[in-house]
Amino acid sequence: MEKSKNLEKFFNPKSVALIGASSDKKKVGYALASNLLAGAKREIFFISIGEKEILGQKTFASISEINDGVDLAIIAVRADIVPQIISDCAKKGIKSVIIISAGFKEAGEVGKKLEEDVSALAIQNGMSILGPNCLGTIDSHSDLNASFSGEKPLAGGITFLSQSGALGTSVIDLALAHGVGFSKFISLGNEANLTEIEFLEFLAKDDSTKAVLIYLEKLSNGAEFMRLASEITKTKPVVVLKAGRSKRGSQAVMSHTGSLAPEDSVFTAACRQSGIIVAESIREFFNLAKLFQIRITKPLQNLVVLTNGGGPSVVTSDLIDLSKSLTLVEFSEETKDELRKVLPSMAAVGNPVDIIGDALSNRYEDALKVLCSKKDIEKIDGIVLMLTPQMMTEVEATAKLVIEYRKVLPIIPVFLGGPMIQPGADFLRGNGLVNFNFPKDAVEALDDLARGMAKKEIAKAVIKEGTENTTGTSRMLPFAEMDELLKSVGISLVGKLVKNKAGLAEAWSEILVSGVTSESAEISFALKAISPDIIHKTDAGAVALNIRTKEEAVEAWEKIMLNIAKNVPGAVLEGMLLQPKMSGKEIIIGMKRDAVFGPTILFGLGGIFTEALKDTSLRIAPVSKENAMQMIKEIRGSGILFGLRGERPMNTEALADLIVRISELSILHTEIKEIDFNPVTLIGESAFLVDARIMI
Amino acid sequence: MEKSKNLEKFFNPKSVALIGASSDKKKVGYALASNLLAGAKREIFFISIGEKEILGQKTFASISEINDGVDLAIIAVRADIVPQIISDCAKKGIKSVIIISAGFKEAGEVGKKLEEDVSALAIQNGMSILGPNCLGTIDSHSDLNASFSGEKPLAGGITFLSQSGALGTSVIDLALAHGVGFSKFISLGNEANLTEIEFLEFLAKDDSTKAVLIYLEKLSNGAEFMRLASEITKTKPVVVLKAGRSKRGSQAVMSHTGSLAPEDSVFTAACRQSGIIVAESIREFFNLAKLFQIRITKPLQNLVVLTNGGGPSVVTSDLIDLSKSLTLVEFSEETKDELRKVLPSMAAVGNPVDIIGDALSNRYEDALKVLCSKKDIEKIDGIVLMLTPQMMTEVEATAKLVIEYRKVLPIIPVFLGGPMIQPGADFLRGNGLVNFNFPKDAVEALDDLARGMAKKEIAKAVIKEGTENTTGTSRMLPFAEMDELLKSVGISLVGKLVKNKAGLAEAWSEILVSGVTSESAEISFALKAISPDIIHKTDAGAVALNIRTKEEAVEAWEKIMLNIAKNVPGAVLEGMLLQPKMSGKEIIIGMKRDAVFGPTILFGLGGIFTEALKDTSLRIAPVSKENAMQMIKEIRGSGILFGLRGERPMNTEALADLIVRISELSILHTEIKEIDFNPVTLIGESAFLVDARIMI
Repeated sequence: MEKSKNLEKFFNPKSVALIGASSDKKKVGYALASNLLAGAKREIFFISIGEKEILGQKTFASISEINDGVDLAIIAVRADIVPQIISDCAKKGIKSVIIISAGFKEAGEVGKKLEEDVSALAIQNGMSILGPNCLGTIDSHSDLNASFSGEKPLAGGITFLSQSGALGTSVIDLALAHGVGFSKFISLGNEANLTEIEFLEFLAKDDSTKAVLIYLEKLSNGAEFMRLASEITKTKPVVVLKAGRSKRGSQAVMSHTGSLAPEDSVFTAACRQSGIIVAESIREFFNLAKLFQIRITKPLQNLVVLTNGGGPSVVTSDLIDLSKSLTLVEFSEETKDELRKVLPSMAAVGNPVDIIGDALSNRYEDALKVLCSKKDIEKIDGIVLMLTPQMMTEVEATAKLVIEYRKVLPIIPVFLGGPMIQPGADFLRGNGLVNFNFPKDAVEALDDLARGMAKKEIAKAVIKEGTENTTGTSRMLPFAEMDELLKSVGISLVGKLVKNKAGLAEAWSEILVSGVTSESAEISFALKAISPDIIHKTDAGAVALNIRTKEEAVEAWEKIMLNIAKNVPGAVLEGMLLQPKMSGKEIIIGMKRDAVFGPTILFGLGGIFTEALKDTSLRIAPVSKENAMQMIKEIRGSGILFGLRGERPMNTEALADLIVRISELSILHTEIKEIDFNPVTLIGESAFLVDARIMI
Repeated sequence: MEKSKNLEKFFNPKSVALIGASSDKKKVGYALASNLLAGAKREIFFISIGEKEILGQKTFASISEINDGVDLAIIAVRADIVPQIISDCAKKGIKSVIIISAGFKEAGEVGKKLEEDVSALAIQNGMSILGPNCLGTIDSHSDLNASFSGEKPLAGGITFLSQSGALGTSVIDLALAHGVGFSKFISLGNEANLTEIEFLEFLAKDDSTKAVLIYLEKLSNGAEFMRLASEITKTKPVVVLKAGRSKRGSQAVMSHTGSLAPEDSVFTAACRQSGIIVAESIREFFNLAKLFQIRITKPLQNLVVLTNGGGPSVVTSDLIDLSKSLTLVEFSEETKDELRKVLPSMAAVGNPVDIIGDALSNRYEDALKVLCSKKDIEKIDGIVLMLTPQMMTEVEATAKLVIEYRKVLPIIPVFLGGPMIQPGADFLRGNGLVNFNFPKDAVEALDDLARGMAKKEIAKAVIKEGTENTTGTSRMLPFAEMDELLKSVGISLVGKLVKNKAGLAEAWSEILVSGVTSESAEISFALKAISPDIIHKTDAGAVALNIRTKEEAVEAWEKIMLNIAKNVPGAVLEGMLLQPKMSGKEIIIGMKRDAVFGPTILFGLGGIFTEALKDTSLRIAPVSKENAMQMIKEIRGSGILFGLRGERPMNTEALADLIVRISELSILHTEIKEIDFNPVTLIGESAFLVDARIMI
């Protein structure tokens, strides 16, 4: 509650103190001062030790001279005196502080120490500190520019959080060129105190924020991030541009922020689970912003393309048809007839609707009237209105139609050209809309939005403790302990662990009466030595196959003991595992504890599918049964499980159960670092766990 | 030779006659007239039946009144009188004609007939006719605008061929906005006479054309297209944007041009084989044009990113690292040391080189000096120079450095922003260069260029006749004929065809002494009825498995005969195939004759890999041994053949041989429509053809 009040003051403070104000136009202190003055009227205090007056306003030599309880302090002085200034702010009862100054963690050991001091002071005094090494904040609605950005963005509904200052200035500048407006801009800097987490929490309740864009290089708390994102994405779209997706990119993040980037596949899985749209480039990120600018924040899947150009309409049809989640509406005969009535005979009345090159704006309007009134309007989520500049094309008049008809149906304008279409683009902009430069820009953004929202799986009860045990050395859990652990969540390994040769006979009888092998006509068995000292069983001669009788089993035991004595002398033996031979489809299920997100669960068909084709699916725990079924369906080769060419489908329910249990196990036992079920063999209606390994 | 002379006149005619000139600004005849007059001085004749003077120039009432042997006639009159005008042109010895007029094939039956007349007249009189229903041509070097395009493009080295007029005007307009110049623009229209083929032939020898962009909806001759493309791409990059890649897109092409689009996967394979870069969107197409504009027409694979913004540098590193064929150069310690000497301590001297936000242009220059002089210059193909607009950034001065240092190394400028970077973008443009708006725009284009050129496999001897036999009904070739045909190219099916029961004994002995089964310890056999009337053998009870003795074989024969009599009475039996059981990795190889490109060869792992994962590779015949090996390596699951996890690699040479032989077979025998080898079973060092089917 207190925190949330502190955060509000970053966006709509009644009074602001700028420490380090300057009238030197080359200095950050000048940009900050003039930006503050350019905004709405507020009580503003300039603190400067060198100048008596800045921009026509009297200054103060020290923060101690100003009123108590100023809402927001902005610090732009050299790093080494920042801790002292913060202490001074604390004494004056200031709770919200932006540190613009650089020279902290990013600058080496001395700076790192200074940053730790800042962080400690914030906690000690119950302060909320943004930065250091950041651009500041901007709020278009309260008309506050508490940043040194050279430009003031247009007002709008998008809030943009950036862990990179440079990306922040670029996107704000781009947005000005394209007519995209922002509600708030927050440059996070080094995150000594406040992180993306606190701001996400705040934005969830912020009415002026209709959509959230985040540029992310590091994540302070994966589980909390997912929880908050799942909450926000119920009502507002969230787009993340994550840097460090590749090996070289991660290295660049390291050298840029000193932080480790979360593993990309895990991060992407976490975002998808939380309903976040993952952008892979600044271009994609920005085109989503353009979509939000025209107030499209909910998925539009069923589209109509309306155009005066045959070629571009075909290309756009391709893009929509080949997209992951968009389709072209199939018109009813009634709609086609109505279109035929109003369009020339050479026009195409299917979808795309091609009103051909000599169309004036009235022809666009005739088609729009039909689309917006006939019964197919129920089927249409939105219209991609394309225009190519022909000799007679009425660019501006067509732009006017966009403004008019978007009251009835969402319209995404794509005016494809340069100087000739500019009056149309300008007109759209003048009315708070944007033009998409290429059909692909619009289709990609629409597809991202539809996919992002469709894939949403609310992470219900993310376990914060899950992320702790990911570093340090790990060891393999002894077989007997593992077996017990697995049994505790209802999972049994195939076969029996036999402690000594004398036990073989009993195990043999037991296993033969159990149901395990009943489906197989010819039964053969395997015997495998179980020892923490033997990793590669086959190499050590610690495995025997094709055992058909009890006598052969005893012989095999003896032979394995000899091999071990020879190849791994001194190995501690837990016993040997007697297993019936299992022939069927092989599956792997695994868990690995991620440093940022906690337990991540992997599912895949075994062998080449996993190794060469990387055909696996991934989720952050906890995984519900429903999510587990989605994981199974999601892999490209899922057909093999659901019955290809009339084959009998496998028992995927049993697989989903196993996935859920691994998820539970890894949440209950935070000491587990890795689980490998490899393989799980599917035979008929059953799923058998043939081999398992747990690392703690 | 004659043709090539005719084509030249479309771009640099000494004299031009415009039939249908007009002074009505709303008419195409006006736009053409004023565009012609705006270009270089030429002899220009306006023919008009209504006006005595147009744009200050005296007109002629009929083409018969003007000089003989005018180089180029442009026709912009109503469709029904076009054939008469062409005849008049022929009488005057005019060999090159552009028909701008619409109302031909695209307008229905009457128009179709008119277009056939035009086509016949062209052949009859040895004329070269462009169009009808086209925009015309533009040549920037000869300063000819023989189109009704509202704008005159900048001069440059790119030639743009478009089968869509609307896309043509859009791209020309876009190019003006971005500073991209053209050598020639050719709007192909309906292609009644001249097609993309004739122009490609011409462009191959055209010195002012440094790169070719083609927007394609239909292809008149696939084999010829590949031959020409393979020739041109030896020296100039060719980019194709192909419309109709999806089902809905193909339908839109149909409704737009009345043409069938070639199947997308076949088309893409053909382009790749010919060294053509395939663009999937107008955006991608246009960004390649921007790359050509800055004179990058050869692959640059090893890149350096130089930037003043940490965040954008990370994102760009990701894009390069995750691209298909680009890499970030690893600097030597020497280069890093030199960079450290000239850059501040907080800069990153790896690659990306991040000179940080407060960099002035001199810091860019210091870094460029090191990169362009130290020994790593040998490793560097190009520099992506990124700029983000910070308070102190010297945008224009940095743009000047691009101009200067691109004399040493190719530099791809990415100034990321809007109004703040505009002076830099303008400066680049003023010097004939372009700015890439987003890192992704540049990286995608560079990747396309590198991939396109890398994948080049010259199609040496494409068989023109190959495309003929693709329609009409097809039938399965009887087994004996198929067997003979396969043997003619050195391919044998496993097993023996046994004509009657009496022949079983002999076949049994023969097959047992042959080497086929020597690797298997337990031999079992299958017997399969061979009959054109039995398609689904198993359903008909026409297959017996697990035969171990001669006696069992005789029993199986009798049982199959009974089954056939019962299930497929009257089926004509060629005999039965006696085959040893084959257990191994299964492969499929197929051929299908495409209507545009002739025989296409498909390779894939069998079963789920082909059906669910669509993991196949495709080539247009002829396929050399080398290309066949590439096909094998190209599939995602190729690891399974080359030895995964220490498994013995399969005999991929034998597979490549089979692919080459199928290719030969389909070139020699144009009556074959389809070949299916399914499966080819790999055991040890051998590849066995277990089942085959040929459709003629």
